[in-house]
Amino acid sequence: PGKKVLIVYAHQEPKSFNGSLLKIAVEELTKQGCSVTVSDLYAMQFEPRATRNDIVGHLHNSEAFNYGVETWEAYKSGGLSKDLVEEQKKVQEADLLIFQFPLFWFSMPAILKGWMDRVLVQGFAYDLSKAYDGGLLQDKLSLFSFTTGGSKEKYAIRGDVRYLLWPMQHGIMHFCGVKVLEPHICYAPEHASEEKRKEMLTAWTQRLKTLWKEEPIDCSPEWYFK
Amino acid sequence: PGKKVLIVYAHQEPKSFNGSLLKIAVEELTKQGCSVTVSDLYAMQFEPRATRNDIVGHLHNSEAFNYGVETWEAYKSGGLSKDLVEEQKKVQEADLLIFQFPLFWFSMPAILKGWMDRVLVQGFAYDLSKAYDGGLLQDKLSLFSFTTGGSKEKYAIRGDVRYLLWPMQHGIMHFCGVKVLEPHICYAPEHASEEKRKEMLTAWTQRLKTLWKEEPIDCSPEWYFK
Repeated sequence: PGKKVLIVYAHQEPKSFNGSLLKIAVEELTKQGCSVTVSDLYAMQFEPRATRNDIVGHLHNSEAFNYGVETWEAYKSGGLSKDLVEEQKKVQEADLLIFQFPLFWFSMPAILKGWMDRVLVQGFAYDLSKAYDGGLLQDKLSLFSFTTGGSKEKYAIRGDVRYLLWPMQHGIMHFCGVKVLEPHICYAPEHASEEKRKEMLTAWTQRLKTLWKEEPIDCSPEWYFK
Repeated sequence: PGKKVLIVYAHQEPKSFNGSLLKIAVEELTKQGCSVTVSDLYAMQFEPRATRNDIVGHLHNSEAFNYGVETWEAYKSGGLSKDLVEEQKKVQEADLLIFQFPLFWFSMPAILKGWMDRVLVQGFAYDLSKAYDGGLLQDKLSLFSFTTGGSKEKYAIRGDVRYLLWPMQHGIMHFCGVKVLEPHICYAPEHASEEKRKEMLTAWTQRLKTLWKEEPIDCSPEWYFK
């Protein structure tokens, strides 16, 4: 109760299975007394491209555009574009970040990857020698909740899906100091029976009920690749 | 000689190190007698978002938008948007696909991920039960050429960078039946001396000279996770 949750949602269709998962999360977490904010990326027509437009006003070096340097400088001087500042504010206030999306090509849809690329700039999310357990977004939790096209077996290596989560969970969230909860994966809802789909939705509701008691996973290389 | 190469390039600045790597590839491959095409994604303002706009005309099911189904149907009926058809034509004609980009968050920049999401649609790149060694883009080679922000050690797990390449090389290229050459990685050029940068550029030229004699890597789960 009183916790703040940001759900970054990347599906075009409210009637989709991802849309149902989003609705459930908003309802259940609100019922718990959490304050829930949703960034509905397609509805916002969120810009995924990292360009010069992300910096308001003059560039630090207009001779050769360097996105990483320019956004870092712009963050420090308050010169980032309005849409990025708004997303950063949501992140800053959140205790928990939930990413809800359909897996595209073993990863996030580009619109969500663009959110990571543009929002988590140096100075805000990490800094020189402030990464991983020293990252700047400490004391926050994250959870990747996604649907797949294929069956569980199609993504499992040595019986485990964790390998495709490495770049997202370790390379992004852990890098910024954000703790990572177990992913929530709904396998192939498009090919499942109506009954099975209902079971998957119920399982998500159930998990959310005890979410705040969960321990983060060990997001170290050793846990992934032991 | 006579080979066709498509370079999909994702950097905003021609004067960048990525820009130099692109220039080298175009010059060296052209000198060899190859026909080289470049998709300069930022210059094209390539759209990374997978939306209803990718389908021209009527939807198969306008009640609930399903991107995968709609683009599959649109591919079969010739109803994909013009920008996608053009990229697919370039892919179809190419013997080799080179992806040139700076690594963003252990993966591709969103603009390049969007190229994967939108261009490699079902029916064109893979189909029901036509995936991996049976994928539809057989007899093509691919090569991921990228720069990093951090040093080699920062990306190595058990001494190897291959784990972060798994979603890209196996999950995308291998899935479509495209063979994968060893990645070409320039570590931290921004922090390197001018001499070291020159060495890295020369190494890329040298590699390209004998590229057509290279054997693809074994892109199987066993190779990655043995």
